[in-house]
Amino acid sequence: MRSMIPDYLVDVLGDVAADTSGALADYIPELAAADPERLGTAFATVDGVVYGAGDTGTEFTIQSISKPFAYALALADRGFDPVLAKVGVEPSGEAFNEVSLERDTGRPLNPMINAGAITTHSLAGAETLGAEERTERVVDGLSAFAGRRLAVDEAVCASELEHAHRNLAIAHMLRSHDVLTEDPVAVVRGYTRQCSVLVSTRDLAMMAATLANRGVNPLTGEQVVPAPVVRQVLSVMSTCGMYDAAGDWATQVGIPAKSGVAGGLIGALPGQLGMATFSPRLDRHGNSVRGVSLFERFSSDMGLHVMNAPAAALSVVRSNRVVGTGADAIRVLRLQGGIGFPAAERVVRETVSTAPGEVGVVLDLTLVSSIDDVSRRVLLEVVRRLTLDGHEVYLVDPESMMPDPDPGDGGRVSVVADVEQAVSHLSSAVGRRTPRESPAGR
Amino acid sequence: MRSMIPDYLVDVLGDVAADTSGALADYIPELAAADPERLGTAFATVDGVVYGAGDTGTEFTIQSISKPFAYALALADRGFDPVLAKVGVEPSGEAFNEVSLERDTGRPLNPMINAGAITTHSLAGAETLGAEERTERVVDGLSAFAGRRLAVDEAVCASELEHAHRNLAIAHMLRSHDVLTEDPVAVVRGYTRQCSVLVSTRDLAMMAATLANRGVNPLTGEQVVPAPVVRQVLSVMSTCGMYDAAGDWATQVGIPAKSGVAGGLIGALPGQLGMATFSPRLDRHGNSVRGVSLFERFSSDMGLHVMNAPAAALSVVRSNRVVGTGADAIRVLRLQGGIGFPAAERVVRETVSTAPGEVGVVLDLTLVSSIDDVSRRVLLEVVRRLTLDGHEVYLVDPESMMPDPDPGDGGRVSVVADVEQAVSHLSSAVGRRTPRESPAGR
Amino acid sequence: MRSMIPDYLVDVLGDVAADTSGALADYIPELAAADPERLGTAFATVDGVVYGAGDTGTEFTIQSISKPFAYALALADRGFDPVLAKVGVEPSGEAFNEVSLERDTGRPLNPMINAGAITTHSLAGAETLGAEERTERVVDGLSAFAGRRLAVDEAVCASELEHAHRNLAIAHMLRSHDVLTEDPVAVVRGYTRQCSVLVSTRDLAMMAATLANRGVNPLTGEQVVPAPVVRQVLSVMSTCGMYDAAGDWATQVGIPAKSGVAGGLIGALPGQLGMATFSPRLDRHGNSVRGVSLFERFSSDMGLHVMNAPAAALSVVRSNRVVGTGADAIRVLRLQGGIGFPAAERVVRETVSTAPGEVGVVLDLTLVSSIDDVSRRVLLEVVRRLTLDGHEVYLVDPESMMPDPDPGDGGRVSVVADVEQAVSHLSSAVGRRTPRESPAGR
Amino acid sequence: MRSMIPDYLVDVLGDVAADTSGALADYIPELAAADPERLGTAFATVDGVVYGAGDTGTEFTIQSISKPFAYALALADRGFDPVLAKVGVEPSGEAFNEVSLERDTGRPLNPMINAGAITTHSLAGAETLGAEERTERVVDGLSAFAGRRLAVDEAVCASELEHAHRNLAIAHMLRSHDVLTEDPVAVVRGYTRQCSVLVSTRDLAMMAATLANRGVNPLTGEQVVPAPVVRQVLSVMSTCGMYDAAGDWATQVGIPAKSGVAGGLIGALPGQLGMATFSPRLDRHGNSVRGVSLFERFSSDMGLHVMNAPAAALSVVRSNRVVGTGADAIRVLRLQGGIGFPAAERVVRETVSTAPGEVGVVLDLTLVSSIDDVSRRVLLEVVRRLTLDGHEVYLVDPESMMPDPDPGDGGRVSVVADVEQAVSHLSSAVGRRTPRESPAGR
Repeated sequence: MRSMIPDYLVDVLGDVAADTSGALADYIPELAAADPERLGTAFATVDGVVYGAGDTGTEFTIQSISKPFAYALALADRGFDPVLAKVGVEPSGEAFNEVSLERDTGRPLNPMINAGAITTHSLAGAETLGAEERTERVVDGLSAFAGRRLAVDEAVCASELEHAHRNLAIAHMLRSHDVLTEDPVAVVRGYTRQCSVLVSTRDLAMMAATLANRGVNPLTGEQVVPAPVVRQVLSVMSTCGMYDAAGDWATQVGIPAKSGVAGGLIGALPGQLGMATFSPRLDRHGNSVRGVSLFERFSSDMGLHVMNAPAAALSVVRSNRVVGTGADAIRVLRLQGGIGFPAAERVVRETVSTAPGEVGVVLDLTLVSSIDDVSRRVLLEVVRRLTLDGHEVYLVDPESMMPDPDPGDGGRVSVVADVEQAVSHLSSAVGRRTPRESPAGR
Repeated sequence: MRSMIPDYLVDVLGDVAADTSGALADYIPELAAADPERLGTAFATVDGVVYGAGDTGTEFTIQSISKPFAYALALADRGFDPVLAKVGVEPSGEAFNEVSLERDTGRPLNPMINAGAITTHSLAGAETLGAEERTERVVDGLSAFAGRRLAVDEAVCASELEHAHRNLAIAHMLRSHDVLTEDPVAVVRGYTRQCSVLVSTRDLAMMAATLANRGVNPLTGEQVVPAPVVRQVLSVMSTCGMYDAAGDWATQVGIPAKSGVAGGLIGALPGQLGMATFSPRLDRHGNSVRGVSLFERFSSDMGLHVMNAPAAALSVVRSNRVVGTGADAIRVLRLQGGIGFPAAERVVRETVSTAPGEVGVVLDLTLVSSIDDVSRRVLLEVVRRLTLDGHEVYLVDPESMMPDPDPGDGGRVSVVADVEQAVSHLSSAVGRRTPRESPAGR
Repeated sequence: MRSMIPDYLVDVLGDVAADTSGALADYIPELAAADPERLGTAFATVDGVVYGAGDTGTEFTIQSISKPFAYALALADRGFDPVLAKVGVEPSGEAFNEVSLERDTGRPLNPMINAGAITTHSLAGAETLGAEERTERVVDGLSAFAGRRLAVDEAVCASELEHAHRNLAIAHMLRSHDVLTEDPVAVVRGYTRQCSVLVSTRDLAMMAATLANRGVNPLTGEQVVPAPVVRQVLSVMSTCGMYDAAGDWATQVGIPAKSGVAGGLIGALPGQLGMATFSPRLDRHGNSVRGVSLFERFSSDMGLHVMNAPAAALSVVRSNRVVGTGADAIRVLRLQGGIGFPAAERVVRETVSTAPGEVGVVLDLTLVSSIDDVSRRVLLEVVRRLTLDGHEVYLVDPESMMPDPDPGDGGRVSVVADVEQAVSHLSSAVGRRTPRESPAGR
Repeated sequence: MRSMIPDYLVDVLGDVAADTSGALADYIPELAAADPERLGTAFATVDGVVYGAGDTGTEFTIQSISKPFAYALALADRGFDPVLAKVGVEPSGEAFNEVSLERDTGRPLNPMINAGAITTHSLAGAETLGAEERTERVVDGLSAFAGRRLAVDEAVCASELEHAHRNLAIAHMLRSHDVLTEDPVAVVRGYTRQCSVLVSTRDLAMMAATLANRGVNPLTGEQVVPAPVVRQVLSVMSTCGMYDAAGDWATQVGIPAKSGVAGGLIGALPGQLGMATFSPRLDRHGNSVRGVSLFERFSSDMGLHVMNAPAAALSVVRSNRVVGTGADAIRVLRLQGGIGFPAAERVVRETVSTAPGEVGVVLDLTLVSSIDDVSRRVLLEVVRRLTLDGHEVYLVDPESMMPDPDPGDGGRVSVVADVEQAVSHLSSAVGRRTPRESPAGR
């Protein structure tokens, strides 16, 4: 059998191919000379599989798509506070080349506009780095996101530098507000180099997948930036990524995204998928015309929208039954699926409403597929409270979903291989003592 | 055992109780006379359980929290296009009482600022309704979201009307742009009544839970508005709900939310939870000071942030094995967990890489907890392609996760009770024919 | 002989008549139904002569041209401080229908935009007036400027009121900021009535001439408003009168002006002339197309620009000679022309550099045409200092340019009929005393 | 006798000396180190006399006061169109360091904000000049305005260049819009040098007097720039000179003015006076605190406000009488004062209403002090029409107010020494012919 995913991608490319509206960026000859017919898309899963259709291997300059990644590097290298002190997180409602500085402080509104991105570049790497080392740090970081060594298009870089008056203006303005503290000309040179990094659509999908995968590159396994940094980056992409069409994108597509003037466009769905498209003709917002269409299709065809609620999950409590009778009777709660707070809450509720009369209680995690931090803490608190109510509590956890369970503060839990082992363990335990208070008494 | 959820809520309330910063809204005497010490919070699950702490039963006026719900009603009653033609979805980056109309059209930027909310009110219910009927439609709709009949605070309503000059200004401005087509004075009267609806913190939590539950009230089971409307509303709340602090909220809290000037604040996490807080003192943005603190706690304590990727789920393919031998051999893929597109993709991949040599293939959905539309379509396409490759495909689906499976276009699938039934069915089937092409040949 | 002024006006009208660009105001049917071909102009001198060409008698609604006059009335009726507290004097750089309120206070930027004009209307007449009395006060005041009883176009007024949503919006907004303190609906009704006053081009020229004539209507001789009010009004017209083309107008035309949406346009040159034009088609700024052309012609043809320096005047000191000899010798300074500060300074200088050795000094004002306050004070100080230096000072002033001259503080001056009378007076005076110090000693 | 003008200036300085509010500019050490107590003022008349009080000789950097003069040089060197194409004339309502570029074109709003001044600098001198030659052209031009060779403060210039990030930002922004077409760094270097020119208060008064004197330096007699350029410069100063307090200044002071960050302030009243003050402490608008107070005093004490109408002048027609009798009778109109259009109009009116029955008509200009272009043309047209009506017209013009009078197109006039000569000339003329039509017939 052949996978239908590539077929789907080919189909969707075919649907948008006829749209030749929009225009190439033309502020430098190199971009104006791009082949406007190029069209490609790629998906990268969080476990590293890449699907593609069309021109997925053609290299082009990353341009503004470098912004979220450089922002991630700055946050990782300097910490949140120093970066937030210099660059805000508010949508500007303006085009990418607006200056958009806060009136009093001169702080750029967000890292996705040029003023913010130039400032962000200056915050990547240690404070002590020289300008060239800093730029190298950024190129290295972008490469780590892509999972391979990326090169710089020297011709584009040189040409951009010749037409960098707007960015020089912004950098000098930032310097005059002491938002930039380094030589503005050197920072613009480094930022321009950052934007001139060559990527393929496939690279972009992998970079997006690294964001979707909590900062871990699915191929290399490298933790490029910490998970909280990724959450920050995705949040800012979701409100500021698509320039002045932020609200349209948030409602119609609903995927944190970023576009570049060379025609690239990426989207990252946390925990799910990295996506990228490439088509050089741009709309009046500066976003790839066919790229936007493709993302609209992806969102509506596959329900890939962050505000989509999944269909109601089956109850996390697959079964709640008593095994054995009399003194050997033991209460078994068999849980299933991924457990986040809402699921953990249901486990609590089930336990409370059951008010088990049996001394022994088993939480069977065999069918549980994942469990997050807060849920782990909630389940341990369930264990602790059951202990305090006089119960013996057992955990069946063959996949080690809750390693080293320690309910603390009077709680106690025994990890057992299966329900049978719990039953036999209970027999000996109960022989030794009686519940402090009758569990049925609640 | 007692549930620890209320304990948690009590704890968190205790942590923020000492903060008496901020000030009561004072533009009408009724709000200025509110008890500033009131403090409450409630969570409502998508299956209708409500947890609360503090003043969860005190009634206060809903104020701007009515905006997302009235927007939902307008979208449901008129459809997307007529509403989007009158009210945009772009963040304004401005305070709630800014006019914020599009320069040329006079269209309000979004439905969360007053100009947008006044316009939205005029779009609720059928176009033919009179002003009073329209207001009644909105109060009915808000009641449906809450799951009980809500009343209007007539004293507040009367007082607000006496101080409605700003809203009258906005309404006349909208009328001058033909964005409003009805009598501006009557619309402001209706909108003021909408804002004067009395709710408790508990009501607000239930209203939020209705949004989190794809538009279905968890208590009454009523589909108040369709799911696509809810997605639109949550998207707009996520970018425009918290006035000019949109970016701060999106990064630090990450929960679609809406606040009201009487001190209420709601948040809705799609598929998960409705949340509400109540504390009347407001910060300079007009948001409840302690409400904002509570939501920051909820987000950080429980990982309730829309950009949080869940911890990597266990493989959706729990096992991939062959049952039986020789001609009776049958390939069994046992799936588990909730299946969205990324999981479906993995099933495809597993199937492709397995390239089953056996004629019979079983997809066992026994452990699957949910499956969305696109994944259902992908799995049916897997079935169809396996059929075309000469396989007999069986579905074990005791919970009817995929009712009436029809792969279409040459595909065929038999729903069986369990793997044994598939084996026995296969025996007779294979007796009748041979695969068109050797499945192993691929 | 026939005057060539009307010929000039006819010629200039002929030059612009062919220009049919621009469009009628069409927000109410009455304005849209105006005859677009109407064309007229009138000049009114500060002594009451009116020259006209074209449609000088056709009546149309005054519209925004009422704004500077209502502002004058408010300043006259309430004083400067209360009016300046409510309405600023800064150019808005925006179209007439922009709201343009100061961010914090809600104060309209200036009285020439609608927000400022609505506020200004509410400030005309005593604070105790009812809405209808106030409106009557404004219509009376406009009539006093025109020198005849003006009527209201009731049809236009009624129609404007039906389309007054924008002004109602502005008035409610002003009320919400407590800039307006009265019922916004009543104020808009009164303001609309003010704008509906019927005037002819001839009336407008006379109203402008009243401004040019320091507030005195040249025909009726009535001091409609005090001179300092007129200075304020002309200053504001010069920076805010022509909407968003303020700078173009100030450089190219340089005449304080105001236009109305019915096609009227006035200009006032302080001390010189009132001008008016009428042509209903408007440019994109809302100013009469042919009216603007006519004013450009008037300015360039006749040098009527406030920044035009007059050609250097002849020396104010027409002659400086000694009459008589010996003890009878007397110094005679014969002055001429209009004396403002610069001329007064030259008299001082002449007197200082002459250092008259003669006891008697005559200031002969026979040829002086005017003398302003500061110059009067300077000349009296010259007299005083000459007295202190031991001189006898005489004033020949047949036209009473300096009535009741009192140099004060040791100064003394004798008013005489002519130089001969000074000589004879001096003979007797000198006979009585000797200069305290030799005047020639300086 | 001593002049009281210096006394007045000393008095006024004394009145403001106690005000120590405001703060020194501190963006460079050199300005921060200025003596804040310095205080001086100077008046320069249009015939070159300078009055001063306080620190009139201390040199300081001209800073933004160079802007109107550089604008004058650019207009003179390149012509109006090329300059207006690059720099607008609209008030910005913003602080001096706002960028204030037109949205689409990037054209600075006016030449008084930095963006406009930087662009203006680049337009001084011929297009072919190199950067250093251009700067030299500007320094030469400023020197010509001052009437002496001005030097550059090299220390300030160097320090400003080190802190020129904001201006570099602006220059690069202008370059990115192709408003600047030269190297932005070189232009900023030249502009900074322009701002570092050293002037005394006395110099500034003389520079202002050159503006007041239609572009002719009162001391050197050099026509530094043409009169139409001066009119443009004064117009722009009047609307854009005092930053965001333009309206306050226009109403309260009413003198075209410009301030500099080193504490200088100039004002120019066309045809009358140049004024300057020096006091380094600045208000929040960046204007000298005591300088502003001084100008308010000058304006109110001396009525020096462009919107002040002079007191009504005596009639331009001093007498209208008949000399001689019978056939020798001759009509004599004796005119007086300065004649602009309004006066010329009265001459026309007098002539028309007189409808002289006498053949001979004398216009006696002996007492006329000035006459402008349009009035000269009007008077010549009076002559022409009188000729056509059969009159013999004579001009008595001992001061050559109307040299080479040529009424053209059938008109004829004889210049005579006095009325007697006209009478005798008429005798012989009338002896030769009879009026074509009876003058009395009209």
